[in-house]
Amino acid sequence: MKIGFIGLGNMGQPIARNLIDAGHQLTVYNRTFSVVEKFASQYKAQVAKSPEAAAAEAEVLITMLANDGAVEAVISGTEEMRGALYGLNKGALHVSMSTISPVLSKKLAKIHAEVGQEYIAAPVFGRPEAAEAAQLWVVAAGKSEQIERCLTLFEAIGQGTFKLGEDPESANVVKLAGNFLIASMLESLGEAFALVKKSGIPPEEFLEIVNAVFKSPIYANYGTIIAHENYETAKFKLRLGLKDIKLVMEAAEEVNVPLPLASLIRDHFLSAIAKGQGDIDWSGLGRVNAENAGL
Amino acid sequence: MKIGFIGLGNMGQPIARNLIDAGHQLTVYNRTFSVVEKFASQYKAQVAKSPEAAAAEAEVLITMLANDGAVEAVISGTEEMRGALYGLNKGALHVSMSTISPVLSKKLAKIHAEVGQEYIAAPVFGRPEAAEAAQLWVVAAGKSEQIERCLTLFEAIGQGTFKLGEDPESANVVKLAGNFLIASMLESLGEAFALVKKSGIPPEEFLEIVNAVFKSPIYANYGTIIAHENYETAKFKLRLGLKDIKLVMEAAEEVNVPLPLASLIRDHFLSAIAKGQGDIDWSGLGRVNAENAGL
Amino acid sequence: MKIGFIGLGNMGQPIARNLIDAGHQLTVYNRTFSVVEKFASQYKAQVAKSPEAAAAEAEVLITMLANDGAVEAVISGTEEMRGALYGLNKGALHVSMSTISPVLSKKLAKIHAEVGQEYIAAPVFGRPEAAEAAQLWVVAAGKSEQIERCLTLFEAIGQGTFKLGEDPESANVVKLAGNFLIASMLESLGEAFALVKKSGIPPEEFLEIVNAVFKSPIYANYGTIIAHENYETAKFKLRLGLKDIKLVMEAAEEVNVPLPLASLIRDHFLSAIAKGQGDIDWSGLGRVNAENAGL
Amino acid sequence: MKIGFIGLGNMGQPIARNLIDAGHQLTVYNRTFSVVEKFASQYKAQVAKSPEAAAAEAEVLITMLANDGAVEAVISGTEEMRGALYGLNKGALHVSMSTISPVLSKKLAKIHAEVGQEYIAAPVFGRPEAAEAAQLWVVAAGKSEQIERCLTLFEAIGQGTFKLGEDPESANVVKLAGNFLIASMLESLGEAFALVKKSGIPPEEFLEIVNAVFKSPIYANYGTIIAHENYETAKFKLRLGLKDIKLVMEAAEEVNVPLPLASLIRDHFLSAIAKGQGDIDWSGLGRVNAENAGL
Repeated sequence: MKIGFIGLGNMGQPIARNLIDAGHQLTVYNRTFSVVEKFASQYKAQVAKSPEAAAAEAEVLITMLANDGAVEAVISGTEEMRGALYGLNKGALHVSMSTISPVLSKKLAKIHAEVGQEYIAAPVFGRPEAAEAAQLWVVAAGKSEQIERCLTLFEAIGQGTFKLGEDPESANVVKLAGNFLIASMLESLGEAFALVKKSGIPPEEFLEIVNAVFKSPIYANYGTIIAHENYETAKFKLRLGLKDIKLVMEAAEEVNVPLPLASLIRDHFLSAIAKGQGDIDWSGLGRVNAENAGL
Repeated sequence: MKIGFIGLGNMGQPIARNLIDAGHQLTVYNRTFSVVEKFASQYKAQVAKSPEAAAAEAEVLITMLANDGAVEAVISGTEEMRGALYGLNKGALHVSMSTISPVLSKKLAKIHAEVGQEYIAAPVFGRPEAAEAAQLWVVAAGKSEQIERCLTLFEAIGQGTFKLGEDPESANVVKLAGNFLIASMLESLGEAFALVKKSGIPPEEFLEIVNAVFKSPIYANYGTIIAHENYETAKFKLRLGLKDIKLVMEAAEEVNVPLPLASLIRDHFLSAIAKGQGDIDWSGLGRVNAENAGL
Repeated sequence: MKIGFIGLGNMGQPIARNLIDAGHQLTVYNRTFSVVEKFASQYKAQVAKSPEAAAAEAEVLITMLANDGAVEAVISGTEEMRGALYGLNKGALHVSMSTISPVLSKKLAKIHAEVGQEYIAAPVFGRPEAAEAAQLWVVAAGKSEQIERCLTLFEAIGQGTFKLGEDPESANVVKLAGNFLIASMLESLGEAFALVKKSGIPPEEFLEIVNAVFKSPIYANYGTIIAHENYETAKFKLRLGLKDIKLVMEAAEEVNVPLPLASLIRDHFLSAIAKGQGDIDWSGLGRVNAENAGL
Repeated sequence: MKIGFIGLGNMGQPIARNLIDAGHQLTVYNRTFSVVEKFASQYKAQVAKSPEAAAAEAEVLITMLANDGAVEAVISGTEEMRGALYGLNKGALHVSMSTISPVLSKKLAKIHAEVGQEYIAAPVFGRPEAAEAAQLWVVAAGKSEQIERCLTLFEAIGQGTFKLGEDPESANVVKLAGNFLIASMLESLGEAFALVKKSGIPPEEFLEIVNAVFKSPIYANYGTIIAHENYETAKFKLRLGLKDIKLVMEAAEEVNVPLPLASLIRDHFLSAIAKGQGDIDWSGLGRVNAENAGL
């Protein structure tokens, strides 16, 4: 399949590679052009100098970007560059994989429809390692036939695809709700470790028990970071955690749902950033709770 | 081994049975005497008419009761009955398996020591089904040689034992911290489902995704209850959840650790009880959050 | 002084009248034109058919509107109407009295400066009754000489003016912080009444004591509403309360300040709106807390 | 009137003096005997060497102590000393002025009744300065005729008395609810100052505006402390604030009322204590919020 691919970050690169490995033809674009050149020199991909060019020949245009602003910029364009909206053919499909707001997803569905283009949301669960191993989970929502069109693509990058009905923004809500569950695990882990440490119990021993009882890769992974206070080598930066929590709070506000636990996490992220900790791992919630406990 | 066993509730009965099956001699006591008689008629156990009697011949006295008050009553006694403290021989060992406060655990260690008896705390993780299957996790703390003395007992009831050092109350802190992690998962799940439902997404579909991504038995188990709003057949009553959350908050207060997420959960439990929902399952946090969202 | 005046709402009308009474010449604009006509027929004011026209002859242009969107619309214009920015003369001054975000205030300062116009922020404290009685408090920030220029105007509408330095947005921060203090009093009053009522104490008797001890007009005013559950005749709608709380949270987020009490109030406002209570008085926080307590 | 008076602390001394000045005969007791001796040498009072002795001749026994434990000790006695319960005549009245739990107040009513003694609760609002000036507010609850019996006493120490019905514990609930309102004002003030300071606005200028707009002595008093970060000269220690917040939370839990704002304040007090700030003024909530904001 001819695929335009925009966004060669931590997640985008392994996804793009897996698509190439599966035999698809990719035309890739990234804001920093050197990244595109390097990628195209290593893998069999066409280079695009603008989002519009990446979209021009594509049956399917995939975007995998950091936030709402980046997605809006590459689709609608900016003063400096024309957006993919102006390159994509009628009937061609934009597959939005980024973690964006349901509101933007709805808007993208609308503006693509107005010019005869198709749109689905297909955010993914999984870290860069999972992307690398083609073990992502894809949550897709939009017209059924458009999702069908992409199933072989999703198979090339993930271990399973969930279909969620006709409204693309549903997939974005589910992605945000999932990230909220992870952040909640970090907050509770952070509080539990503060209690355990201050009670004189070695954190490694507590972690061992948690791992045995809960058998949760997320507790295991982040528990290790928190137990060793090893926040500096961030896998996912705390300030990006704040972005996600704000997105889920806004999505919930759209439908008048209070999420008091999200509010608590937001305030703890803000406090960490206020203390200059925005670039540590988002499990740095452990540090916030430790400091609040006088540790 | 000669074992006195006090507390034949949901957890106590299967534990006692597994000890009998492993060849130990049990003398059992329960506040409601008919429970003792029925148990003794079905399994090979001696009947005790008081905590003192249950303790009289025991090398090891195990208590598995609902709360601090119940444990204090059977150990120190009440106006109506003499406590196990007066029956237990010098050198005999009290193994406290209940979910109790670290403060009480410390006090028990002290009063047993004053009369030449031994004490360890060995609370367990696992639900009645796990107790049935001898698949509990035991978290033991106290004098090393006393824990050693019980290892064959713990093997008979669980899949593994963790040793936590000389202070018995450490085991109680860890047990409470673990229950706090579970309650936190319920709260976050409850909030996430409120968001998802109000966004028009079928809760079963969300649950399916959560199960795939998180692979957590706890999310799977309670997620099913919350998705189907099936709170009435309580596995663990909400008012017992409040008891546990209060215990963890008190344990944290002892060492000056704020647990804002525990505070949030406490307030939600209280609200449920205020609305007459104290006897539903503690995943009823899902109902609290649904109602707060106007569902 | 020649004054353009935009926004004839609950607050705008009495302010405009007091300026007219003080001898100033007003040209008034309001989105709903019939309001303008009615006002001009009752008081000595010129009618403007657009924000641009209201600004055209003005030495000072005053805006008193409901929110950021309304202020941006009248200043920068919309597709349907030209904004005041295009009417205001060089050297003329825009005095923004609305409760808006510091971010917008900063932006207004910038766009006015770019075309040689002046800008100060001068939000006010006080309810419509206080505006009527020329008893508002004015909090003004911006260039000192521009504030001086308006002192006679502020005297005509208020009982005092506070000057806050050169950055206009400081005045907006202070206004939002003040509204946050009021909302906090409502939340705490709502919780206290829930406790008192459920303890069987007549709420009127509690209110009497609160009034004696605290001598606070705000407790007295809203306490009466909460004690009598008289939320339906809204003085200030709950959904506007949510708007203000969100503004203060955003202003705080700009400088990385967590406001956990504001988060709590936001969640309670959201819950009320979810239950169809967005149009009751914002002291409806009393109802939220009463319901959470099972009342 | 013959009065036994127990508790010569910051509040007790000025109250006792005002009663003496009004012509009553006092027999005073305090745990630290030197305080009693010094007081009796300065004012016309009899010295008692035990609570029992203080109560022996009294028509009315007043207690004004720091907490539940202290009140229980002087009434029921300890191993070292006999309690007032054993000294008080039949028909004599215990007036409990301390800030204690409603649960204890109910219990005191019961144990006095059992031996034919009378009991009312009459906690007071006002700081030591107000006690000095006989400007306290008395909130009295219990049998109407017993309250009547004390009205001249209350007039001698306060500016007004509120009667709250037959259940003594009602007065304690109201006292705790009032202290909760004050603590809430401290929390909101602390958060507001963090926002204002971090926005570059001089805190004194913000305070000036708050004082003008709110006209609240509590904002004025504590706002000055927070603006100048002058927490070290504690008027009311933060750890006593925690005690009061816990009492109000327990009283609310008795009737199943969540107080999420009290939970928030409790967690902030705990955090301050964890950082070694238990002895600063309870407006130290300002410091907690400042630190959480990176100040």
